[in-house]
Formats: sequence, C-alpha cells, structure tokens
Amino acid sequence: MNIPQSSFPRIIIIGGGFGGIALAKKLSKKEAQVVLLDKHNYHNFQPLLYQVSTGGLEPDSIAYPIRKVLQGYPNFYFRLANVLEIDTQGKRVLTNIGDIRYDYLVVATGSETNYFGNMGIQNKGMAMKTIPQSLNLRSLILENFEQALLTDDLHERDALMNFVIVGGGPTGVELAGALAEIKKGILPKDYPDLDTRRAQINLVQSGDRLLPAMSEVASRKAERFLEGLGVNVWKNIRVADYDGKCVTTNTDTVFETATLVWAAGVQAVGIKGLDAKEILARGNRLKVNHFHQVEGFEEIFAIGDVAQMQSDDFPEGHPMMAQPAIQQGRSLGENMVRLIDGKPMKPFVYRDKGSMATVGRNKAVVDLPKFKFQGVFAWFVWMFVHLYFLIGFRNRVVVFINWVYNYIRFDREARLIIRPFKKQNQADRSKLMQD
Amino acid sequence: MNIPQSSFPRIIIIGGGFGGIALAKKLSKKEAQVVLLDKHNYHNFQPLLYQVSTGGLEPDSIAYPIRKVLQGYPNFYFRLANVLEIDTQGKRVLTNIGDIRYDYLVVATGSETNYFGNMGIQNKGMAMKTIPQSLNLRSLILENFEQALLTDDLHERDALMNFVIVGGGPTGVELAGALAEIKKGILPKDYPDLDTRRAQINLVQSGDRLLPAMSEVASRKAERFLEGLGVNVWKNIRVADYDGKCVTTNTDTVFETATLVWAAGVQAVGIKGLDAKEILARGNRLKVNHFHQVEGFEEIFAIGDVAQMQSDDFPEGHPMMAQPAIQQGRSLGENMVRLIDGKPMKPFVYRDKGSMATVGRNKAVVDLPKFKFQGVFAWFVWMFVHLYFLIGFRNRVVVFINWVYNYIRFDREARLIIRPFKKQNQADRSKLMQD
Repeated sequence: MNIPQSSFPRIIIIGGGFGGIALAKKLSKKEAQVVLLDKHNYHNFQPLLYQVSTGGLEPDSIAYPIRKVLQGYPNFYFRLANVLEIDTQGKRVLTNIGDIRYDYLVVATGSETNYFGNMGIQNKGMAMKTIPQSLNLRSLILENFEQALLTDDLHERDALMNFVIVGGGPTGVELAGALAEIKKGILPKDYPDLDTRRAQINLVQSGDRLLPAMSEVASRKAERFLEGLGVNVWKNIRVADYDGKCVTTNTDTVFETATLVWAAGVQAVGIKGLDAKEILARGNRLKVNHFHQVEGFEEIFAIGDVAQMQSDDFPEGHPMMAQPAIQQGRSLGENMVRLIDGKPMKPFVYRDKGSMATVGRNKAVVDLPKFKFQGVFAWFVWMFVHLYFLIGFRNRVVVFINWVYNYIRFDREARLIIRPFKKQNQADRSKLMQD
Repeated sequence: MNIPQSSFPRIIIIGGGFGGIALAKKLSKKEAQVVLLDKHNYHNFQPLLYQVSTGGLEPDSIAYPIRKVLQGYPNFYFRLANVLEIDTQGKRVLTNIGDIRYDYLVVATGSETNYFGNMGIQNKGMAMKTIPQSLNLRSLILENFEQALLTDDLHERDALMNFVIVGGGPTGVELAGALAEIKKGILPKDYPDLDTRRAQINLVQSGDRLLPAMSEVASRKAERFLEGLGVNVWKNIRVADYDGKCVTTNTDTVFETATLVWAAGVQAVGIKGLDAKEILARGNRLKVNHFHQVEGFEEIFAIGDVAQMQSDDFPEGHPMMAQPAIQQGRSLGENMVRLIDGKPMKPFVYRDKGSMATVGRNKAVVDLPKFKFQGVFAWFVWMFVHLYFLIGFRNRVVVFINWVYNYIRFDREARLIIRPFKKQNQADRSKLMQD
C-alpha cells in the first residue's frame, strides 16, 4: 500500500463519510499517522441525493474530493480501496490493494440500503444511497417519460408515469415532493403531447405516520404539504414484493409501476472479521461503548451509522443521520488525541440539534429541541443548514445558484439522460445498483 | 412514434447539435411540423468537453435538455431515438422506436472520432467526443494516479503518469494545457507522497505545426505556451499503434503510457440509405449544394459537420466546428420557410468569425478575420465567446462561477471518480467508448 512507517501511531479510518471526515480533520494535525480508506475518492453529501435524482442539482456539486478536504495535512494518507476483512488478531486491514497494520482502527463505513432479504425489490427496485444510484434513478425517470410518449397502450403508459416510493422517512418524503413539483411545473411544458396529469406519485409508509423520527406536528404537516402537491400518501401499508411491473402489498392495494424506489430501510455496512454475533446490534450495527470502542476491543472504534451506542435517551443507538456521525467523529478525534497523550478519554455526549425535512418550494418541517415550525421559514432554515454542512466553497455557491434559479424559474435543468439506465442494464440491474 | 398528422409539412431533423438546434429554433414558430430525433435527450456543448475530462466543469453544466430549448413551441416534437436507416424512396426514417414519414429531412448527425481503421487505438485509446467519454477519461486519469501510488515498479508508475494526446487541433492543445496545469497546481497537493514531477504530458502532432487550421502566429504561440507549461510537443510524428501499454510511431519514438487520448481525426456520422458512394465526400461527409440539399435529393438536406459544401474559399467544405453548423442551421431554417412559402431559396454564405483555442490560464490564441492576438486578452475573449454560445442562463452562471473559482484558487474541484473506468471496463472498453 506504500504507506511509510512512522514514529507516530497509525490510525486507519475506513470510510470518508460525515464521521470519517470529521474525525480525520481532528486528527490530521496531531501526532498520528492517519490513513483513510474509501472505495470512492469523494465525500458524498447524502441528504441532497434526491435533488440529483430529480434534476435539481448536478452530482458534482454535492461531492467533494477526499484528498482536497485534507490537502496539506502532514501524516495524512488517502487510499482508494475496498476493505475485504479485518484481521483483529494481527491488527491488520486486508484490502484489494494490499494489507496494512493498524495501531488504532476506526470503522466509519456508514449504511446501505436494507431490502430485508427481498430479492424482487433488490433486483427490480431503485435505491438512492450513492451518486451513481441517484443518477440511475434520474435516467430512469426521464426514460420512462420518453417511453410513455411512444405507447398507445394506456395501461403501460400509466405504469411508466406511476412512481411508487416506499418509506416515509426524510428520503421518501423529499423525493415524493420533488417528483410532485416536476409533475406540476415541468412535465406539461416538456411533454405537451402527453397527458402528464395522469402521472401518479405514491408514497407508501408501513407505519401510521410519515417522518416517524420527527414530532407529530411535523408528520401531520408534511403529509398535508404532500397532499397539497398531489402526492398519494398511503399509510399502514407494507410493500410485499415487486416484479418489475407490479407492487404487491400486505393489503389488497396493488400498484402497476415501472419505478419502485426503495427508501424503507438501511443497515450498517458490515466488514468481515468484525461480524461476531455478540458485537452486532439491530441493523447490523456494531455495539460500541461511550468512547466508541467496539465491544471487546480497545483499539477498534466505530462511529456514525455503523455504530450503535446505547444510552438512556437512545436505547437503540443514535439516529443514522449526518449530525450524530459528525459529532461522533469530532468527539472520537479529541479522545484519540487524549489516548495518544496518555490521558483518559471523555464519554460521548450527543447534542440533539433537531431534525428537518423539506417537501417542496416554501414547504419544510423543522423540529428543534426547543420549538418546532413548518412552512416558508422552515424551508429557508433547511436550505441554510444544508448549505452550511455542504463541504467546499465552490459547491455551496453552485448549489445556492441552482436553488435560486430553480426557485425563480420553477425549473430543474439537469434533466439529462447522460448514461441511460434501461438500455444498459436490463440484464444486469442488480449489479449496477451496487455501485 | 405517436406523432400526429398535421396540415403543415413535416420536417424531420436528425441530431440536436449546434446545427439541428439552430435550425429547429428558426422553424418552430413557422407553419411546419418539426420533429427532432436524437439519441441523447440533451444538447452537448462539445468545445468544453476537455474541461469535463479535467475536472474543471461538471458535465451537467455543458449539457442542456433539448426539450427545454424548444419548450412552448407549437408543432415541435422531440423523440429520443436511434436512427437506423433512411428510406429515401418511401421518404421514411426508420428508427428503433418505429418509422416515420417526412416531407423534408435534415441530416445534422455531426461527427464522431475517426480511428482510420486502427483497432488497437480504437479499443485501447480514449476519445473525447461525448459526455460519457469525457467522464470516462476523467475517471481514468484519476484512477491512474491512485494506482501509481501503489506500485513500486518505477517503470509502471511512470507509464501511469504519462499522458499521450494525439492530435494537435484545438481539442489536443486544450487538453494538453489543462493536464499540464493540473500537474503543476493540483497533483503536488493531492499526492504529496508521489513524485508527480515525473508525470509527463505529450502532445503528438503528425504535421509540422499545432492548430493547423489557424494562423502561423497562433500555432507558434500555442506551442510556446504549451512548452512553458511543460508539455512535450512532438511534431512530424505519426502515431502507428497502441496496445494499451506502448504507443508506437512512424519514427523510433515510443511512449510507454496507460493513457492515450485520440484527438487526431473526426468523420461524419453516416446513415444507412444515404451512403451511396457518389454523395459521400472525404471524411464520410454528404455532398450538399449551396442550399444544403444533398446531391441528388430535393427534399433531403444536411448541415454541420456531416455536410460538405464546396466553395472557392472552402474547396473541402467548411470546417467541422460549431460556427459553420450554427450559421448553416439558421440559413437552412430561413430557406425552408421560403420553400414552404413557395419562394426561391438563398444560397448559403459562410461568414468566417475566426477561430480560437485556449492553452491555459491567461493563455489563448485568437484569429479574427481582421487581426490576430494571443495571451491574456485572447483568453478573456475565449471565455466570453464560450459563455455566450453556451445554451441556458443557469449553465452560463454555473460555468462562470466555476471559472472564477478555478482562476482564483488554481483549482479544479470536480476530480471525482463517480463511475470508475478501469474497474468496470477492462473487458469491454470499446463498447463503453461508444456511448
């Protein structure tokens, strides 16, 4: 792997997401050799992926080269690598580009879509956890409308213009809202020769309210916003299967659709060698103590979505979102400096800064610890917060310009089929969804 | 294809490049049914593709949805289609989505890379005529450096950091300049643990000067600019073959490289049914008269790269560039209106507005009909002209912001391996290059 020996202890971080980057930044001016491994060479701002899928933002402006984040930091090494296994006995990480010893290991591999073993949905449905996946969805949506123009079979045409989004969390709500706005503002102009009023956006939620991690008022308001935009919200329905044409549920409700987006579950990205039953919690997460040490290990840590730290407030661990990951990365960074200096570590305390989701233009819901609000002001807060946490000045400016433009013009111009999805992947869709 | 019958004559345009778009705009408010066919749903601003390949611009900001360009025009129909054949007898266009009759047909299919039958170069080299190709090249360049870090074999490392660009036209010159700037400004910061000074950028030109279509002073100055940036300019050398590792030439000169970019030839994109030997000129172009009528046809026209109109000033046809295509599209549009109105058409007169190429920061060469200049002012002119011809207000703003940012920061932030090239395509590179 060509990483030089150093007199400093070597800390290997697996994953350049919110947690890994926050940690690396804390460590990289310290007396430690930091090696960051990721299978991508960029950090990806997941909360805005739905805007890539719906043509509102270009993919490059929500991604940021990892090397650039830590440019100029001494003792920092990035390697583009797929981690294959952890040899906890030999304290080594085994990867596709060779093996490397660690003094400390931090697992920050994040989460991936959880299909709960349903192969139909996994093979025929779309997910939206990575940039290539989001671009695939963007292509598919546009290809569907181009195809809908061509068919005289009303049944088929409706299926092509019917979207089923499974999962009432922020991703599902935001995607449904964006699609509803496209239906209203863009489709009639782009496809004057197609009756796009027949397009349907269905949001299916297994529980009895949307945004179950937020307040009741946020859920209620989000649902009202969505219905105002024309989204069909289905609650208390569980999707059973999808064969590429028909979505079946646990009720009589059935959807004929060419597009199922699965946003109904995530699970931690596991690693071989760190997969003993005793250390795994629900959703494949690694059980960690209040210093982020993985159960049974002193020198292996986990942060972010992949870590489950039980506490009184969060008996199931912190929410799998950006905020906990960032805070955990920072906390662990400070602790590792203490550890290297021989000082005692401080237990992690999560500061809940609230949560938010946007439904559309002037429509968002925000739960702060002290108060909750919805509507136009919430929408501005949502935008401000997302711009603030986006990495890179250029990205912020470009995203801001796009938002201003989209707001003024009721438009989303990145409706480009750069890599067609249907054409290339009929045979091998499941492989591509893994990118 | 679901295009309604109309009392107006039907004009089918094949290709949404500079020529096709300019023509469609002229026609779309007239008494004609305009059907535009393209295999992509976007117009692609080819002159800036090299900036996508080198991470300076995001692909979405140099592409523009074709439907959006002609939004709101009555009697305009766009269809995403691959044209298979022209049935000139039956006046029909045969496509993968069905057949369609035309009253008038305009071929504006543009040009593609010409490998002159060299399969080695075609299979192992990179081209840069489309957005997916440019993104593939971007991925490959970045993957090469990540890989160079890993090897102890100095020979292999050098080959990974060695770039051979074949063709001294604007594309080759601009790409070589951009790579040289990356070598100088970005590589040392991104790869502090790699001796990036060993990276080489070679520009190989078969003739005795670069930019042969421009003035001698522009050629001389461009070469001096490139050499100032550290590019090795090789003149009077003809590349013979490439096996993925070694480039052979008609001399003793040999290059060991993991990356050959072929920018040494284009040819018109031909269509079956319009390929009789008598109507084809050099480079597969269709011979047209001064009204753009294809030789032997009254109702079939060709414009842009695919058309060869002989004149005293241009015995080999107009240059295969954006300007002639735009002017031809506009001229033909006006002529078709005259034709429909029963008026006589006017012969096309090309107004040479000059040509330009940029080498790097503050370095460009501009040949105007009346005077020629090089350097900083030329560079600003180049930028202004390219922004002006870019379609879409948002695209212009985003490109402008990126340029300002890149200029101030000496940076190019879109160095993202979104879809790895090597990993996916070892086996099937030639297929992917056709996208």
